[in-house]
Amino acid sequence: MDIRGIIKQHQLGLLFQQGSFGLEKESQRVYADGRIVTTPHPALFGNRAYHPYIQTDFAESQLELITPPCKNLNDSLRWLSAIHEVVARSLPEDEYIFPLSMPAGLPDESLIQVAQLDNAEDVAYREHLVAVYGKNKQMVSGIHYNFQLSPDFIEALFKAQNTEQSAVDFQNNLYMKMARNFLRYQWILVYLLSATPTVQADYFQQGSPLKNGQYVRSLRSSQYGYVNAPEIKVSFENLQDYVESLEHWVNMGKLIAEKEFYSNVRLRGAKKVRDLLNKGIQYLEFRLFDLNPFEAYGINLEDAKFIHLFVLLMIWLEDSDQSAVDLGKKMLGEVALESPLQPTKFRQEGEQILQQLIAMLKEIEAEQKLIDIVQDKLNQFADPAQTLCGRLVKAIEQSGDYQILGATLAQQYKQQACEKFYALSAFANMELSTQALMFDLIQKGIKVDILDESDQFLCLQFGEHIEYVKNGNMTSKDSYISPLIMENKVVTKKVLAKAGFNVPQSIEFTDLESAVANYPLFENRAVVIKPKSTNFGLGITIFQQGVKNKQDFAKAVEIAFREDKEVMIEDYLVGTEYRFFVLGDNTLAVLLRVPANVEGDGVHTVAELVAMKNDHPLRGDGSRTPLKKIALGEIEQLQLKEQGLTTASIPAKGQLVQLRANSNISTGGDSIDMTEAMHPSYKALAVGISKAMGAAVCGVDLIIPDLNKPAEPSLASWGVIEANFNPMMMMHIFPYQGKSRRVTLDVIKMLFPEWWS
Amino acid sequence: MDIRGIIKQHQLGLLFQQGSFGLEKESQRVYADGRIVTTPHPALFGNRAYHPYIQTDFAESQLELITPPCKNLNDSLRWLSAIHEVVARSLPEDEYIFPLSMPAGLPDESLIQVAQLDNAEDVAYREHLVAVYGKNKQMVSGIHYNFQLSPDFIEALFKAQNTEQSAVDFQNNLYMKMARNFLRYQWILVYLLSATPTVQADYFQQGSPLKNGQYVRSLRSSQYGYVNAPEIKVSFENLQDYVESLEHWVNMGKLIAEKEFYSNVRLRGAKKVRDLLNKGIQYLEFRLFDLNPFEAYGINLEDAKFIHLFVLLMIWLEDSDQSAVDLGKKMLGEVALESPLQPTKFRQEGEQILQQLIAMLKEIEAEQKLIDIVQDKLNQFADPAQTLCGRLVKAIEQSGDYQILGATLAQQYKQQACEKFYALSAFANMELSTQALMFDLIQKGIKVDILDESDQFLCLQFGEHIEYVKNGNMTSKDSYISPLIMENKVVTKKVLAKAGFNVPQSIEFTDLESAVANYPLFENRAVVIKPKSTNFGLGITIFQQGVKNKQDFAKAVEIAFREDKEVMIEDYLVGTEYRFFVLGDNTLAVLLRVPANVEGDGVHTVAELVAMKNDHPLRGDGSRTPLKKIALGEIEQLQLKEQGLTTASIPAKGQLVQLRANSNISTGGDSIDMTEAMHPSYKALAVGISKAMGAAVCGVDLIIPDLNKPAEPSLASWGVIEANFNPMMMMHIFPYQGKSRRVTLDVIKMLFPEWWS
Repeated sequence: MDIRGIIKQHQLGLLFQQGSFGLEKESQRVYADGRIVTTPHPALFGNRAYHPYIQTDFAESQLELITPPCKNLNDSLRWLSAIHEVVARSLPEDEYIFPLSMPAGLPDESLIQVAQLDNAEDVAYREHLVAVYGKNKQMVSGIHYNFQLSPDFIEALFKAQNTEQSAVDFQNNLYMKMARNFLRYQWILVYLLSATPTVQADYFQQGSPLKNGQYVRSLRSSQYGYVNAPEIKVSFENLQDYVESLEHWVNMGKLIAEKEFYSNVRLRGAKKVRDLLNKGIQYLEFRLFDLNPFEAYGINLEDAKFIHLFVLLMIWLEDSDQSAVDLGKKMLGEVALESPLQPTKFRQEGEQILQQLIAMLKEIEAEQKLIDIVQDKLNQFADPAQTLCGRLVKAIEQSGDYQILGATLAQQYKQQACEKFYALSAFANMELSTQALMFDLIQKGIKVDILDESDQFLCLQFGEHIEYVKNGNMTSKDSYISPLIMENKVVTKKVLAKAGFNVPQSIEFTDLESAVANYPLFENRAVVIKPKSTNFGLGITIFQQGVKNKQDFAKAVEIAFREDKEVMIEDYLVGTEYRFFVLGDNTLAVLLRVPANVEGDGVHTVAELVAMKNDHPLRGDGSRTPLKKIALGEIEQLQLKEQGLTTASIPAKGQLVQLRANSNISTGGDSIDMTEAMHPSYKALAVGISKAMGAAVCGVDLIIPDLNKPAEPSLASWGVIEANFNPMMMMHIFPYQGKSRRVTLDVIKMLFPEWWS
Repeated sequence: MDIRGIIKQHQLGLLFQQGSFGLEKESQRVYADGRIVTTPHPALFGNRAYHPYIQTDFAESQLELITPPCKNLNDSLRWLSAIHEVVARSLPEDEYIFPLSMPAGLPDESLIQVAQLDNAEDVAYREHLVAVYGKNKQMVSGIHYNFQLSPDFIEALFKAQNTEQSAVDFQNNLYMKMARNFLRYQWILVYLLSATPTVQADYFQQGSPLKNGQYVRSLRSSQYGYVNAPEIKVSFENLQDYVESLEHWVNMGKLIAEKEFYSNVRLRGAKKVRDLLNKGIQYLEFRLFDLNPFEAYGINLEDAKFIHLFVLLMIWLEDSDQSAVDLGKKMLGEVALESPLQPTKFRQEGEQILQQLIAMLKEIEAEQKLIDIVQDKLNQFADPAQTLCGRLVKAIEQSGDYQILGATLAQQYKQQACEKFYALSAFANMELSTQALMFDLIQKGIKVDILDESDQFLCLQFGEHIEYVKNGNMTSKDSYISPLIMENKVVTKKVLAKAGFNVPQSIEFTDLESAVANYPLFENRAVVIKPKSTNFGLGITIFQQGVKNKQDFAKAVEIAFREDKEVMIEDYLVGTEYRFFVLGDNTLAVLLRVPANVEGDGVHTVAELVAMKNDHPLRGDGSRTPLKKIALGEIEQLQLKEQGLTTASIPAKGQLVQLRANSNISTGGDSIDMTEAMHPSYKALAVGISKAMGAAVCGVDLIIPDLNKPAEPSLASWGVIEANFNPMMMMHIFPYQGKSRRVTLDVIKMLFPEWWS
């Protein structure tokens, strides 16, 4: 088949570049000094029987982080970043993720525990590996790179060629060609991307094969790496031969299972290789990549893209036969043991292949950026010091020790991952609450599919159970009518009043005369008279002790009408406003929101105090921090003026300076957790109010004069101001003061109770 | 207690005028000639054991229509209108509602069936009445007027006075005063509002007491009406005496139950009168009002308001004692038998009382409109011909016969009630779908409370079961996430595609170059290329047979980019679009929407054909008709021009003239029911799509090339275009062609399955 001709003739260049990508990255958990931990896999990740993102590989200490299949590598790396951040922040304080492939600080072999999985067969398999290869060899880590060609591309290619083979055979042959050529030219990737030049001597049971001070390109890909016995030969000539030869070794008992065959390419798509004959190879897994220690997550986007283009070239090139595959493996072994700072003996072939890659990219009209990536790699054949391994050797030399380098980087990466502890960096364009929810989902191993990133729309899956979530807590558990009730303040009041809750009643007027004529309705009642659309408190009069005479009343109404065409007269509730976060049958959090303020110290000016308070790690300018910086704009200046202050004033020690009248967090307010202080009777009321709204998740605002006294059935004791659907969660998770309430986790518990059962 | 003084001093005039109102109106079902029917109470009203709106009184033929308690009389009359419209349209075609209080065309007594109620006691009570009073007397109809003072008013009054009685005693005394004074002055209401001047001779078992041609003011309120034996005397002196004297007659066996005591005022608030002593009288029921035959619903707003003011006067006036009550009853009897066209002998007292009423209204600063109503009644003392009875006598004389007059009016009122058969006139400001839903709820006897009229927000109640409905079908049965999914077209597509439904895929582009570069993705595919925000079809190119070459493709993309900054390329689906209305597990209706059109007849111009089509009773201009008139605006003219026509063209017989490209009903489109024609496989698919959305109620739009062929799993067989929450219902209930599908009833079935079980 003339693939190049078909791609060109049918303009398939674009489809050719499409595909699906998945990364699996192994890493050892280590202590601060780089020694591998002996602790079990953290229990808060739940069970590895189902976890889609966080697994263990061979040993209990060996994390395996898995990205979901993505249509582009950018997303794959975002996921890799997110999973890393979740793991880094979930590990015990004294544990880190080791950034190098070869382990350092290995414990005594007896202390290395194989992964404690539910499935007895999986454990037995690992025990077998221990017997055959020893434990230390299993402790090596790397990245597996899964790649699927676009099925549309394969279909278009199939339709355009003239052989009489079936579609499945066509697909199998295509992937087999890719596999063969990959094995033929894989040494190039080792030359460019390997990063296992050395290891500590105690790694080898029989003593190190390396001379003192000797570095190689890749111990991991060399004969000293984790490889099958040399007798195990599996044919890549065609799928049928592959299946039969692999089955042969398993039947002979030389391999305990098909998966013990450690090729640098694995054929994927079925549990048993034989099934691939009918089902077709779905994708290939490339397994020879060492961790890039200069990247926090082991790989960077350019290298990931380069690998993609390289494997595409593998079907663009002329085919290889089995002898070429064997040659490729031999070359790999030789390159692996070359000195990293010396040119490779196969430089000419390497340069020639990358030139062919550039030619291919030009023919399929690929972006220049991609050509630039390849050109950069091409240049590294002339300058081995620029290869990853070349750079790593220099870094090891500089730090003086392999383990010290790894430990230093591990600490640095963990610190970075914890810096913005409230966010998932790779998904920073989403709302914080959705980031927090995704954090918990990744941690707990519930599959997340982002259906619409800008709309905060997620699809969650655990087993066969699917749930959708929008904006962090809008779910199937709320009924449709419930937010509609809460959206309408009139209806909300009626429903709550009917259900027997204390609701401040209000009457609206559109003219001064009728309002004043209704004076008798308000006499002796504590009311607030306000323009319907309130604006910075203008036009509001509060009769806290009740309206005492008609003149005052009329005056207040008149003032309100100066600001708006409609005026509300509402029962006035004396007390403090608290936000109750209710989920199902429980009030999970109670929050007091305090208007933006600073406390004087007798030394600093208001402006300085504000700047100092704004330094708090939770405060930011945009919408992506849990708290907001206090501004010093017009409204704040006005507020200061009312207190006889300016930004240059120096308030006395302990003096509270108000910078806002409103308590919104979004205008610099403080959030203070009051969950434990609040009398339980009010928490029960909030649950009742949420239930009356038919809500599963509800933010209930109550006015309470005394949070220590039990609730009584009168407006003097408490009143409900508002019930909010899709209530904010970040202010409870990251309050300015008081205990964090991780309510996103409760949303997940509500949606997937089976996880906890 | 000095009520007047307290009201003035404490400015309670406004609260004094507030209250709750309820009307109960009896009427006989009759045939077109006015004869009383012998058919059972219509089964479609469900069971009278619970119906809050539609009951029967004494006989199976005697409707009792009940309004819910309202805070103002305007609403009471709106409800009365709505209930009447429901009944009028639900009755068999040959049945009508008789508008006069005295029955005409009475069947043989043996054919009069007492109301067939579930409760055996209720039936036994009616049989007892038959034995004591005979059947005919029970066939008289009237209006009962329930009135409750504002509890806030009573509370304010109680607080302002100085006696030491309890709040309950105070309330009882207040209502007792109202009752006594009412009985003392009730003759005034009979003079002004009575409407039973005569009856057919066969009404009386012993022959008519009226001379030939003699008219009286109120047979119903006279000794010939439906009254207790003269010996039954119950004291109104105070509640204690009332309770004891009434219990006395029941204990003596002279009354079968307390409710057999037919006072023109009934004390309400407890099942047993004795309980009123503790619970307090809650409201009074005034029972002496004859039906006003000149009003379709038996009473008008002015009279209803007058009655309210009159009963308020009853507590404003000096108190009456038992002897005054007895005097009042005697005067009532005399006035009832006066000649309607003669002045009453008590004219002086009547005028004096109404002058006192005017004085009261002035003192409490009531609206002038109310004073005008009273003034009008006051004037009727000088001109008896203006009283209701005076006018009725003239009408009887003119029509020649009491029964003929009643039958004529009955037919006229039924016709009026059926005119806008798709609407509830009194609630015409609400959406038609909500009106249709309210119609069904009233018919079936499920309580409706309008929480927010402009927001179409209803509270429904059946027994203890409460449901909320917004916009006709937004309920608790849909989950919150379901409309959120449907709101987002990208998410909808992903969810449906994941669930395995045929979804046209689309890709969006923001620049010409990248769109053209992606040509290979679309080659040979049937696609539609369009600006993202389509506007009257501008910029759209359809490749129905698949994109064949890059030049055509690039041109189409370029044209689309002229109209918008974003261009969509979407799979093109060949076929006709149908709307499936899905509720739960069923597709209830399938509708074809045809763009506005007329069919030529070779005679009329396009403009004339449009005018003729617009004459259809379902077509209107605003938003409150099921179909819309076809406009002849710019867009329609353009559409005509494309067909080489103008509004003055005369299309050939049978020629179809398109006036719109879009099929929306709101722009004059036709709706055609296709429920039965549609192959069931598509109906099942629509249900599946609705379920994938998690929807209880869903409008699914499918493109289907051949509705007779079963669905197959490819886009060539069908594709889903949209899933809509809160789908329109009126187009299914009142299609232009085909069978009506009363989907509102299914919404009710979904919410209250117990009604049907």
